[in-house]
Amino acid sequence: MTDTYDPTRTAILLVDPYNDFLSEGGKVWPALEPVATEVGLLDNLRAVVGAGRAAGQKVFFVPHRRWQEGDYEDWEHPNPTHRIIQERRTFAFGTWGGEFHPDFRPADGDVVIQEHWSQSGFANTDLDFRLKQQGITHVIVIGLLANTCIESTGRYAMELGYHVTLVRDATAAYRPEMMHAAHELNGPTYAHSITTTADLLSTLENGDH
Amino acid sequence: MTDTYDPTRTAILLVDPYNDFLSEGGKVWPALEPVATEVGLLDNLRAVVGAGRAAGQKVFFVPHRRWQEGDYEDWEHPNPTHRIIQERRTFAFGTWGGEFHPDFRPADGDVVIQEHWSQSGFANTDLDFRLKQQGITHVIVIGLLANTCIESTGRYAMELGYHVTLVRDATAAYRPEMMHAAHELNGPTYAHSITTTADLLSTLENGDH
Amino acid sequence: MTDTYDPTRTAILLVDPYNDFLSEGGKVWPALEPVATEVGLLDNLRAVVGAGRAAGQKVFFVPHRRWQEGDYEDWEHPNPTHRIIQERRTFAFGTWGGEFHPDFRPADGDVVIQEHWSQSGFANTDLDFRLKQQGITHVIVIGLLANTCIESTGRYAMELGYHVTLVRDATAAYRPEMMHAAHELNGPTYAHSITTTADLLSTLENGDH
Amino acid sequence: MTDTYDPTRTAILLVDPYNDFLSEGGKVWPALEPVATEVGLLDNLRAVVGAGRAAGQKVFFVPHRRWQEGDYEDWEHPNPTHRIIQERRTFAFGTWGGEFHPDFRPADGDVVIQEHWSQSGFANTDLDFRLKQQGITHVIVIGLLANTCIESTGRYAMELGYHVTLVRDATAAYRPEMMHAAHELNGPTYAHSITTTADLLSTLENGDH
Repeated sequence: MTDTYDPTRTAILLVDPYNDFLSEGGKVWPALEPVATEVGLLDNLRAVVGAGRAAGQKVFFVPHRRWQEGDYEDWEHPNPTHRIIQERRTFAFGTWGGEFHPDFRPADGDVVIQEHWSQSGFANTDLDFRLKQQGITHVIVIGLLANTCIESTGRYAMELGYHVTLVRDATAAYRPEMMHAAHELNGPTYAHSITTTADLLSTLENGDH
Repeated sequence: MTDTYDPTRTAILLVDPYNDFLSEGGKVWPALEPVATEVGLLDNLRAVVGAGRAAGQKVFFVPHRRWQEGDYEDWEHPNPTHRIIQERRTFAFGTWGGEFHPDFRPADGDVVIQEHWSQSGFANTDLDFRLKQQGITHVIVIGLLANTCIESTGRYAMELGYHVTLVRDATAAYRPEMMHAAHELNGPTYAHSITTTADLLSTLENGDH
Repeated sequence: MTDTYDPTRTAILLVDPYNDFLSEGGKVWPALEPVATEVGLLDNLRAVVGAGRAAGQKVFFVPHRRWQEGDYEDWEHPNPTHRIIQERRTFAFGTWGGEFHPDFRPADGDVVIQEHWSQSGFANTDLDFRLKQQGITHVIVIGLLANTCIESTGRYAMELGYHVTLVRDATAAYRPEMMHAAHELNGPTYAHSITTTADLLSTLENGDH
Repeated sequence: MTDTYDPTRTAILLVDPYNDFLSEGGKVWPALEPVATEVGLLDNLRAVVGAGRAAGQKVFFVPHRRWQEGDYEDWEHPNPTHRIIQERRTFAFGTWGGEFHPDFRPADGDVVIQEHWSQSGFANTDLDFRLKQQGITHVIVIGLLANTCIESTGRYAMELGYHVTLVRDATAAYRPEMMHAAHELNGPTYAHSITTTADLLSTLENGDH
């Protein structure tokens, strides 16, 4: 069961839909593929975005910083993830890996937020401001990774006063236990609703929104 | 191994050391007791705070909202944790459960931050501002719960640009798998150091700070 | 002319209505009295709060930090206003000066926000979060001082995505040129509406809200 | 007299040094030219940036949103400044007006912050985070406009716990009374130091930093 959604006040936050994460040949895809395949990630992302648009919801692209020359080099304390990105040049600006997956390109009316440096799409970006300028009070957070960017974006959304929905199979992680942590251990402590793509679609299509 | 700490720029963030969490007879203590006992929570909290003070570090008390009459009642969307607190009156203002544990009372020179409504000690409080007014750049986050308030406070600290240290056995949670999630799955993605009380003390006592 | 207001989405932010500011015998009242008297401050504050309540708007109390022993003493860089407050003990906790003026006491259903340390009622407090939990999108900012706390609260509200209304004669300042700066020079660059008590009341009473 | 500055902890925040503001032929330059010429704006900006670099201070570019097609169009409540920018296409992306003035281009080691939508360089950007990753505690805020972006950036910096310096003649505004409001009426209430280019240079060159 999921909550219902007023389409004029609900947004889909699509986090980090880069080729490096979602496409065959992407730098991180091999590490994600087992879980992504098991949950049907790409089909579900397409389905949620499609149903959201059909219901009149806004789609917000919430992109990670695309690596650029010099990034992190003179920082006082990059964290372990920053260091990995620095080394691997994940989502490198100007490369295919740092482009959005072809099925998740911004359409007319979508909003593309400033890039986030770390995990939360709200931290150090204009996401809260842009949501307010659209009258949004409810967010459905999908994309990658379940226990890092999705979880931090969800935790921040709750702290900022938004109603937060997670979708178990419209995200992925490196290991099944990370999915379990995100949806069974941590999500229930902060999120207002944790649902599945099928249940969310049923809610949206029944007009219960 | 842990990082080293400049005592003039390092603070201990002691999160939610209430009787309801830490004391026999507290409302939440029975749910925490198995993990707390196993890791030696109270001894370790005392040890970290003591060693921090001895090394010249500031101690910041980061308290959860103490429940008051009317809290959450007309909110548009309290989350599941808000609802539980509303029902159980956890950390109720003016009651013993909402007082700090007797071994964790603010001392001269400590800083007591505004209460947080949810999980992050930084969200909707003056914690970042008060840290800046003390020149703090490094935080050691201890207290409760490992996968909720400690984790959200740590995630926020990192997003705000602080160096973040977690201490595995100076926190607790309802279930061992929540500790595992906090320290093995999620912590390594955002925290700069994840250590133990013994290793931290060794670092501080060796003057490697 | 003013905008119209949906009462379910509009809040009055009543900033710092302390005796030290508003009452005969208050520490700051003598410095404010000339402008306050000229604009009819107290009558206008009563009128706006009354009309807002009658229209179904929520009233948020946005209080400055009440001075307490030790405040600012070990800060790295208190600003000039912090130093003045430290010296004069303005709004001292537990004193009459640090109580709300008798005509501006929180009523049932009002929300009292955490205290702000400096000028903006949003900075380092839970104001944004509490507004979101009430579905508020429009704020009417009244109280003191026009060019410090009111202006910073208004500037922050705009940056956070709120619609901001200032009321020229429901605030005051130390000198007329500060009122001029607030309402003729700076306000028009960030606020959505700058009105008077009479015009605002007319809007609210005509049901144009 | 000015404060002294530790170069490793001090940054210059250079706000909005666009051709539209600073160059002959820029869209806003005609409105600024009288005040800018009177205070010697361009020479002073060059002098402060040069002296800051020579002293080892970091320079942070704090740019306004460069107008793009669609900006503000479906916002619930753009403010008056947003509407003017929408109409005039100020700082339009991809045009000369939206490029930095040739004397104020980022050099190696400078940091370019995300664009701000409104007045404060901190609001909805990564400025605080990037400053923290450089260990900055003191900011010298220069550029445009004295009573809008400079003032809001300064007010935010203070609320975030930074030490704030304004430089009277390294900024400009549309009218002299706006300069007066920024430096004589409002600045003294929040800023820690308000100085002139000559005094600041003297401080930096004397090694009093």
